Amino acid sequence: MNSHITKQLRSKELQKKIVSAGEAASWIKDGMTLGLSGFTRAGDAKAVPLALVDRAKDENFKVNVYTGASLGSDIDKLMAEAGIIHKRLPFQADASMRKKINEGELLFTDQHLSHVAEMVRSDVLNPIDFAIIEAVAITEEGDIIPSTSVGNSAIFLEKAENIIIELNLAQPAALEGMHDIYEAGEYGKRLPIALTSVDGRIGTNKVKVELDKIKGIVLTHDLDSPSTIVPPDEETAIMANHLIEFLREEIKAGRLTKELAPLQSGIGSVANAVLHGLLDSEFENLEVYSEVLQDAVFDLLDSDKVRFASGCSITLSQEKMKTVFPKLDQYKDKLVLRPQEISNHPEIIRRLGLISINTAIEADIYGNVNSTHVCGTKMMNGIGGSGDFARNSRLAIFVTKSVAKHGDISSIVPFISHVDHTEHDVDVLVTEQGYADLRGLAPVERARLIIQNCMHPLYKEQMTAYFEEALKRGGQTPHVLEKAFSWHLNYAETGTMLEPEFSAVKQHNM
Amino acid sequence: MNSHITKQLRSKELQKKIVSAGEAASWIKDGMTLGLSGFTRAGDAKAVPLALVDRAKDENFKVNVYTGASLGSDIDKLMAEAGIIHKRLPFQADASMRKKINEGELLFTDQHLSHVAEMVRSDVLNPIDFAIIEAVAITEEGDIIPSTSVGNSAIFLEKAENIIIELNLAQPAALEGMHDIYEAGEYGKRLPIALTSVDGRIGTNKVKVELDKIKGIVLTHDLDSPSTIVPPDEETAIMANHLIEFLREEIKAGRLTKELAPLQSGIGSVANAVLHGLLDSEFENLEVYSEVLQDAVFDLLDSDKVRFASGCSITLSQEKMKTVFPKLDQYKDKLVLRPQEISNHPEIIRRLGLISINTAIEADIYGNVNSTHVCGTKMMNGIGGSGDFARNSRLAIFVTKSVAKHGDISSIVPFISHVDHTEHDVDVLVTEQGYADLRGLAPVERARLIIQNCMHPLYKEQMTAYFEEALKRGGQTPHVLEKAFSWHLNYAETGTMLEPEFSAVKQHNM
Repeated sequence: MNSHITKQLRSKELQKKIVSAGEAASWIKDGMTLGLSGFTRAGDAKAVPLALVDRAKDENFKVNVYTGASLGSDIDKLMAEAGIIHKRLPFQADASMRKKINEGELLFTDQHLSHVAEMVRSDVLNPIDFAIIEAVAITEEGDIIPSTSVGNSAIFLEKAENIIIELNLAQPAALEGMHDIYEAGEYGKRLPIALTSVDGRIGTNKVKVELDKIKGIVLTHDLDSPSTIVPPDEETAIMANHLIEFLREEIKAGRLTKELAPLQSGIGSVANAVLHGLLDSEFENLEVYSEVLQDAVFDLLDSDKVRFASGCSITLSQEKMKTVFPKLDQYKDKLVLRPQEISNHPEIIRRLGLISINTAIEADIYGNVNSTHVCGTKMMNGIGGSGDFARNSRLAIFVTKSVAKHGDISSIVPFISHVDHTEHDVDVLVTEQGYADLRGLAPVERARLIIQNCMHPLYKEQMTAYFEEALKRGGQTPHVLEKAFSWHLNYAETGTMLEPEFSAVKQHNM
Repeated sequence: MNSHITKQLRSKELQKKIVSAGEAASWIKDGMTLGLSGFTRAGDAKAVPLALVDRAKDENFKVNVYTGASLGSDIDKLMAEAGIIHKRLPFQADASMRKKINEGELLFTDQHLSHVAEMVRSDVLNPIDFAIIEAVAITEEGDIIPSTSVGNSAIFLEKAENIIIELNLAQPAALEGMHDIYEAGEYGKRLPIALTSVDGRIGTNKVKVELDKIKGIVLTHDLDSPSTIVPPDEETAIMANHLIEFLREEIKAGRLTKELAPLQSGIGSVANAVLHGLLDSEFENLEVYSEVLQDAVFDLLDSDKVRFASGCSITLSQEKMKTVFPKLDQYKDKLVLRPQEISNHPEIIRRLGLISINTAIEADIYGNVNSTHVCGTKMMNGIGGSGDFARNSRLAIFVTKSVAKHGDISSIVPFISHVDHTEHDVDVLVTEQGYADLRGLAPVERARLIIQNCMHPLYKEQMTAYFEEALKRGGQTPHVLEKAFSWHLNYAETGTMLEPEFSAVKQHNM
């Protein structure tokens, strides 16, 4: 056995358990439930799931697949296309899987990311037959060092009947020591979670497991799939500026200092761009307490704009991986990776007073936000951690471009077609048009502000007409119920949300 | 000064500040913001608000009114009718005020009850000019002993520029010592909240205030308004049985013990009836960690079914007040009253693993819940604490009768007309028809279960037809968007949600 392997696989007993991915995959039976590592393309088990997909060529079977969040390496895509998934939770972000979900060919349970560990721990979900977890090292005692994400790996390892470890020799060994694994423990026997700052450490850097449960070790050599975010564009830069303007006003009002408050930002290009916008801001000594640490977080760390970042995974573009991974040990005192139950824990989010920034698919004039469904029925990715953060943070900010599809879709509608965040949980809405600070406002006040500050000019008149008609009917939250979804229905029928009588404005504004 | 007064008003300095309610009310100016004590008809400031209403006979003015929750003594009613409120938050439950809100004559901000203190502390809401707080005693140092509720009194006293105390000599003096006042402190400087059991005490039994801020003491002699709950009826008893059946299954599955988990139950007759149903159950040594302690909680304490109850207010029927208040000191080791920020705090709710039981106005087939709006536009009372609890509890249970208005309204609809609790936050739905355990289920699974177990037979076929049509269109959450609100629209137009083609079933089932 070569020295690189023995350096990372230190348990002599486990060295005897090295098997091929195919052999490990052969242990998985029809109807089983798998707990896979992996959070937003980072740290996913790569070899065994693909070997399992291979088996589907000659065999009919289905498994339940629980993960941290979305997987990379086309695993979600290939599993979905192979038709081997019965139920998938709590989050995915793959086009093929999305298609199968929306065709009803696989069941998808869309959960708050902090809730999965609770449900696994309390035996509410199916028992996990196999945990398949990527690691960068296994200690002499057989303890597991996770790789670029922690996700739900710790709880899967604890609760699974059997364990397969994918020891990834390509991932940076410097990840060892960067994790802080904390097990919340059973309901009714819990102490407070002692974390009082983003850089605190309350656990261990490895996951203790029952050695007997480890059935096999599979050696792998592939890096994570790079992130798919696109660089900031003109519109996302404008949105970042609006957000910064809002934060500046908070400082002026004495509610924040130049150090702001620990920042959470959702995945995706818009949130990444918004974080990126902080690079040139006057804010300093910033802290990040988030799920996914994307490219922008490393730029902010490199520029000393951010002094510390706590996350649950590191998800980088190809380019960024090349520069960050070789010098990863330089981030050791600036970075920690936690289980998603802790990165998204209401106790910590409320205590630290986070500023959370997440992306909306659409919002309505009263400040309700849809994060998951296109036109009310088709799943996009899932709610992810946005609900964990929005409900419990100090400032729940949602960002979205005001229009999509070249103006044929308004992201601000009379009534959103699926509600993931209610009016009670949305503090600030930001589009490229401006921001609306909704805190403390009654619904009609919110509507006026959102229409005025956030809507695209193309749709302002049409929305004002709706709102005025609704106001005549009265109520705390005025609506014309029979027209509430008319914008979505217009789009489905005519290809645009814009009604003919208002479309004269279009040429002028677009 | 008589000895009863000096016994309760121990500060010699403050004895000099006794004024009439009229004089105290005269200090309040147009445009001011008031922080009133009072939570669900308990412990409200009674005299000064009524004196303020009196002033409105000859004077035009408006104030913002922030409270704990709903007020008794017709204060919300009279203030609304006098037209002196500009903005009211975070909860109300009065018919006249509701009418004014829905007519757009006063602004109502419907907030999570645990969020108000955060927003006052962080200076997000208007600064509080006068805190008007009911107390049962004032110590020699001038510290305030609240009465039958804590609500937001502590934070109002801390942040207000001026304080008026209503010293209520009719409230039981035995309340002194029953409070546990804890101040969460500023964001960024917080320690964990040290509460790890329902009977823990982490604060003091009084609220420390800056003496100079106390402008006047008003003596009052009226008890709280009694609660308006109606006794359990046949249907609520059946609902309680379904809930108990569910809890029994949880015990069988090994997920709960006979001691269950700390119980939270919302206000109102249904929740009270459900708690009442536990009296004859086999569960034992129960604990309550809730907002309002209603009649049923005292029955459960008296029968030793519940060993300890933590709440934010005591709200009793007239009859129950007569039996409980004279012997209140007997409950001293079984009962504690906390600020609503702590009774509803996500940190504690998640740590203790609460079972939360709240009332829905309507639910949809996917398990989204409307707690606030009738037909999507008209405010009923407000979200109260239901969101604080549902999001963070171990088990978020919602109860509702399956039909209302003699069957003309189905409480289960295709798409709820206002969303307060999303599918992600609703674990179990209970009607008099049965219960649906939604945990871990994908939307289509949830829909089938809710239709089968929770819907009234009268509407099952009509909903099945909707659902089948929706399924043909596909999607994660199938809908026929143009018919999503058709049930509400039918009701508005014809007085019943039942469509003619399905109404033949009606005579058979009703």
